[in-house]
Amino acid sequence: MGMVGGSTDAFIGAVHRRVAALDGYIELVCGAFSSNPQKSKATGKSLFLPPDRVYGSYEEMIEREKELPEGERMDFVSIVTPNHLHFAPARLALENGFHVILDKPMTLSLAEAKTLKKIADRSGLVFALTHTYTGYPMVKEARRLVAKGTLGVVRKIYVEYTQGWLAQPLERTGQKQASWRSDPKFSGLGGAIADIGTHAANLAEYIGGNPITELCADLQAVVQGRVLDDDATMFLRFEGGATGLLVATQVAAGEENNLFIRVYGEKGGLEWRQEEPNTLILKWPDKPRQILRTGLPYVGNEAAGATRVPSGHPEGYLEAFANIYVAFARAVADHQRGKKIVPQHYGFPDVNDGVRGMAFIEAAVKSSAQKQKWIRITV
Amino acid sequence: MGMVGGSTDAFIGAVHRRVAALDGYIELVCGAFSSNPQKSKATGKSLFLPPDRVYGSYEEMIEREKELPEGERMDFVSIVTPNHLHFAPARLALENGFHVILDKPMTLSLAEAKTLKKIADRSGLVFALTHTYTGYPMVKEARRLVAKGTLGVVRKIYVEYTQGWLAQPLERTGQKQASWRSDPKFSGLGGAIADIGTHAANLAEYIGGNPITELCADLQAVVQGRVLDDDATMFLRFEGGATGLLVATQVAAGEENNLFIRVYGEKGGLEWRQEEPNTLILKWPDKPRQILRTGLPYVGNEAAGATRVPSGHPEGYLEAFANIYVAFARAVADHQRGKKIVPQHYGFPDVNDGVRGMAFIEAAVKSSAQKQKWIRITV
Amino acid sequence: MGMVGGSTDAFIGAVHRRVAALDGYIELVCGAFSSNPQKSKATGKSLFLPPDRVYGSYEEMIEREKELPEGERMDFVSIVTPNHLHFAPARLALENGFHVILDKPMTLSLAEAKTLKKIADRSGLVFALTHTYTGYPMVKEARRLVAKGTLGVVRKIYVEYTQGWLAQPLERTGQKQASWRSDPKFSGLGGAIADIGTHAANLAEYIGGNPITELCADLQAVVQGRVLDDDATMFLRFEGGATGLLVATQVAAGEENNLFIRVYGEKGGLEWRQEEPNTLILKWPDKPRQILRTGLPYVGNEAAGATRVPSGHPEGYLEAFANIYVAFARAVADHQRGKKIVPQHYGFPDVNDGVRGMAFIEAAVKSSAQKQKWIRITV
Amino acid sequence: MGMVGGSTDAFIGAVHRRVAALDGYIELVCGAFSSNPQKSKATGKSLFLPPDRVYGSYEEMIEREKELPEGERMDFVSIVTPNHLHFAPARLALENGFHVILDKPMTLSLAEAKTLKKIADRSGLVFALTHTYTGYPMVKEARRLVAKGTLGVVRKIYVEYTQGWLAQPLERTGQKQASWRSDPKFSGLGGAIADIGTHAANLAEYIGGNPITELCADLQAVVQGRVLDDDATMFLRFEGGATGLLVATQVAAGEENNLFIRVYGEKGGLEWRQEEPNTLILKWPDKPRQILRTGLPYVGNEAAGATRVPSGHPEGYLEAFANIYVAFARAVADHQRGKKIVPQHYGFPDVNDGVRGMAFIEAAVKSSAQKQKWIRITV
Repeated sequence: MGMVGGSTDAFIGAVHRRVAALDGYIELVCGAFSSNPQKSKATGKSLFLPPDRVYGSYEEMIEREKELPEGERMDFVSIVTPNHLHFAPARLALENGFHVILDKPMTLSLAEAKTLKKIADRSGLVFALTHTYTGYPMVKEARRLVAKGTLGVVRKIYVEYTQGWLAQPLERTGQKQASWRSDPKFSGLGGAIADIGTHAANLAEYIGGNPITELCADLQAVVQGRVLDDDATMFLRFEGGATGLLVATQVAAGEENNLFIRVYGEKGGLEWRQEEPNTLILKWPDKPRQILRTGLPYVGNEAAGATRVPSGHPEGYLEAFANIYVAFARAVADHQRGKKIVPQHYGFPDVNDGVRGMAFIEAAVKSSAQKQKWIRITV
Repeated sequence: MGMVGGSTDAFIGAVHRRVAALDGYIELVCGAFSSNPQKSKATGKSLFLPPDRVYGSYEEMIEREKELPEGERMDFVSIVTPNHLHFAPARLALENGFHVILDKPMTLSLAEAKTLKKIADRSGLVFALTHTYTGYPMVKEARRLVAKGTLGVVRKIYVEYTQGWLAQPLERTGQKQASWRSDPKFSGLGGAIADIGTHAANLAEYIGGNPITELCADLQAVVQGRVLDDDATMFLRFEGGATGLLVATQVAAGEENNLFIRVYGEKGGLEWRQEEPNTLILKWPDKPRQILRTGLPYVGNEAAGATRVPSGHPEGYLEAFANIYVAFARAVADHQRGKKIVPQHYGFPDVNDGVRGMAFIEAAVKSSAQKQKWIRITV
Repeated sequence: MGMVGGSTDAFIGAVHRRVAALDGYIELVCGAFSSNPQKSKATGKSLFLPPDRVYGSYEEMIEREKELPEGERMDFVSIVTPNHLHFAPARLALENGFHVILDKPMTLSLAEAKTLKKIADRSGLVFALTHTYTGYPMVKEARRLVAKGTLGVVRKIYVEYTQGWLAQPLERTGQKQASWRSDPKFSGLGGAIADIGTHAANLAEYIGGNPITELCADLQAVVQGRVLDDDATMFLRFEGGATGLLVATQVAAGEENNLFIRVYGEKGGLEWRQEEPNTLILKWPDKPRQILRTGLPYVGNEAAGATRVPSGHPEGYLEAFANIYVAFARAVADHQRGKKIVPQHYGFPDVNDGVRGMAFIEAAVKSSAQKQKWIRITV
Repeated sequence: MGMVGGSTDAFIGAVHRRVAALDGYIELVCGAFSSNPQKSKATGKSLFLPPDRVYGSYEEMIEREKELPEGERMDFVSIVTPNHLHFAPARLALENGFHVILDKPMTLSLAEAKTLKKIADRSGLVFALTHTYTGYPMVKEARRLVAKGTLGVVRKIYVEYTQGWLAQPLERTGQKQASWRSDPKFSGLGGAIADIGTHAANLAEYIGGNPITELCADLQAVVQGRVLDDDATMFLRFEGGATGLLVATQVAAGEENNLFIRVYGEKGGLEWRQEEPNTLILKWPDKPRQILRTGLPYVGNEAAGATRVPSGHPEGYLEAFANIYVAFARAVADHQRGKKIVPQHYGFPDVNDGVRGMAFIEAAVKSSAQKQKWIRITV
């Protein structure tokens, strides 16, 4: 693995490195950790990388790694930069034969996303998008139960991602995350809707099994002076007839990462909460509620395969994230053995999820600006 | 107290009688329990009432009780019939000098509600609407904390009332509640929105301290063949600038009476859930979350006064309901002593809440039918 | 109903009156509310009782009521005084033909308890002890599930009742409850063990279905200067082979009324917590946990019959308490119709529970004082 | 790092490898993964180790690694074998200059433990015992709060570790863990008491800040035919005057890894549950309860330093375990720089904890066999 971005002062780089290391399948062999070459060097050194594998730019990294013999050169690129620096390195990596794992949202705009999809499709390489939350075992179990009809036909999906970290104008203090997240140059069209709304939409589609077809959105910048939305609410319509609701807010003071989803079908409902991820609750009209827990014999293969420790030993965010990496790495290994890769067989979000996410952002922003209620999402 | 409706085969009559009896202030002295005189007699007998105080109609009851000497005749009328039988008995009672306590929603239509308000205002009598949930101590505490600015300026209010009891077409089985609740003749314009949506809206206004001014609603009849809505979602705008969300659904299979409210201000948030009513949670960005519990010294006077047992001995729905009755009975007693009654001083919902509720229903139904997003609520 | 004790400045009297009133079956007709006749009069007046039915002493009440014609005189006596005033009024009431409902623990000593049992048995009258917690629907459901073998043979019972209200020497402030509870003259041999330990023991026996046969106790007065125990821990052995644990403490600062029980059998476990009483959790090794809730169709008749409102509308302590009163009142009515009363058929704790409770207290105190581990409970 | 034990069919080896890898500080360079050389080879291969660093026995590994140049040879040994294979490899490693990290309980007997302590002390090398649960951030926070007197003088400590996996005679099915855990040859004197009781005792001492001085234990083999205890209950006395309770059971059918601790002081209480580890609850008599959460600014340095991701992204068992490894690795690095190591400065359990654990087991077993209540723990 070679990394683009993720110098030691960035939060998300260390997360990616940890989750890549967790299972012993993936080794960090090189990186272009910062556009500042000194910073990149320092980061590489702190990670015990040989100096000649620490590069000053992603262009250099891709060019130089390409020249190394197979088996020695990096197998794939992990891109952990802000949104505005997703498209170019991803494109370059793909065009030079490197598989790519990329942070969400995929690009700055839907147009870029479509271009990237074309490039990825053409390349035949493995491309993963880190919608982390689909890596949780109980999310996989929820998806499985819905798919096999446990709840009956799905009618309602309520998904919400509430955070409080932008309840104050944190970006004015120079905090790094807050600064780029609230700046359209680095983030694109969407604020909260891009950062966490896409996670919520992806989760609703993943568990519910159907794409969102229409939405009616109300976006705001609650904190004065903010350009991008920090708060979003929307009605949803799904293929197959279900309707729902999506909340994505970063001004719910006191909330942490309260991603919460409820799905109701004709026969019963389920709920899952990211802050207590090892539990899945099923609710029934005519029999006791059920609490499903990771690591127990009754969960399906997908969840069982995404669990590392016995029941009652909680797993968390890093393990869920690592599940995305492991699934991606398995696909990369299979690709190297000449296999054609179907991402769904491995369970990682792919370039199509990325395009859908960008279409979702653009539809939400457009819907919020118009007086009419509903708008179609067109990919 | 004289009761209109509430024969032994109706659920809510027994609830009203229990909560009226709980504190020893109110005595049931007469009733017109059913439009079927035999049923009314049988109910009266089972309640140990003297036969001559059990009437065949509310008209008869009001006429005959009026002739009894003060001190012996009923002091007020409790009306617990379906919605279509709210207006007429309430009007007749008020016009004959009896105070009224009435189930919500107040009437079949906003027009009726406005007329009833005029009559009530003119009468100077005490009029209460049983929005039960405002009787919970921790709801009163939440209102107090918001009012004193504990959360800072309120920005977001999310309120939801999810039930599952109408996930199937129960009305076709002849179940009494389901039958009249889903029939416009008995219920009026709204289904879920009238039955539980009004409770949710009232709670949001009560705790948040500001009226809803605009809404954008999406109502559906999810169960095929149903005429009235069984599922509602809406964006809200409040006076003072807060925005929010209201969910009222009766097709969330597996839910019981999951009334849940969250309020976020600049400084922090609160949440309260009806199914665990003795707990109020405060969330803060920079200090530990707090769990407030009924019966403890730090809660305000309103909550303390609405609690009957020491902390750790849970109170529930009946106690909350009884708080509305007791507040109303105190106002009646004060009125009899010649005092002018200001409902807010006693803490029971009044005729203005009733009018607001009807305006809310009509706005929601109208909004759902139009293509434009927002509609104003006009009282 | 005539009441002994329960003047307006005592907490528990009002509780008894409320729960007696709740269901409309029981009417308070007279009382000897205090040994201070003025206080008794004032209390009676505030309760709207006719002055001639408010007595200066329980002796007077029993004598005078006895002279009233049947149908007018009180049917039974409710005794809500401190422990030292349980035996004498209960005995007098029984000897004069009045049924008795009595607060726990039954008497000051096991010897008194045995005498009272003899009197009660001889009288053939209805005698109930208010072990309130067995009135909760989900406690009844737990008992039913254990009895029908849902958990398999019971192996472990953990019961604990933790409170914090005596973490400081509250009795030195003159607080009424704390004063008599910590004084052997009014409370007898046991402090926490008598006040709440007996509730915990009773609950364990009620749900588990088997009596405690042996115990090994460690009692302390944690707060300096206190004479009676404020903290107790003990190992338990039950008939049938189960073992367990009982904790009763009043110095767990920050706890309210945290009565909590867990029962494990060969096949699974259950847990119930008084502070969230409408929920019963079943745990299984090989299938999802189950959350049972009051008011739903799958609970047994005992729980269903002890529930007043639909699921999702929480019931609490007063309703549980009222279930004891209603069961007792039904037995009284049946007795008046000439029926022989078997308390278990009605579901209220009886004189045998009272004797067992006193034997439990004496065994615990004795065990704590000895160096040997185990002691038998002998009734 | 070189590993002793942990072939691919053992559960705990993979856990140790993952947590060692997580933070990028530790590299697995060699191993003697099984006493079966083929198994050892296969495991090494699956871990991408060079064949010449995969050994057939720990003796061979220690001997051969010792001959490698510094910087290339392993720095420390991680021993993850059953209890009967702790002492010999730990001793050999220490005697050959390798630091040791060892699974608990430390040895088969207290005598062995004392010997090992002498050897470790004499060696001056770094020695860690993996009492995993002390690696959780909120456990560190709890310890900090108790130490600074937040709860006042500690009075009561209740600790319990309830599991259900041995509710049936699993060892008779040949299940590996169950087989050796229930066999004195591999486990020593204690069953549940050694496996999980030592964790519970260590946690109580760690958070409470004082050693257990006396105990009164009741151990059983609940499942017929089992030789070692599968269920333990005991009273505890702590230095400083607190008393408490310890439960360790593996027959609580339906429980997972329900390690739960409550500490009550004069001013308030705290509780922490392993299955929801990112939350610490403080309870107060006179102010709202507080929920402390990992990753937030108000927690102390110890907890903050043990957290890898922002609040609201749950961390679990592997992260806690990794905290022990990281602390140990830091000490090893400091030792290599010539620093004298004080384990408490790093926050990992050490050889003294190991000796205490063995003394605890022996006292518990002895206490259970005697008729007298209390026994002293002597180290």
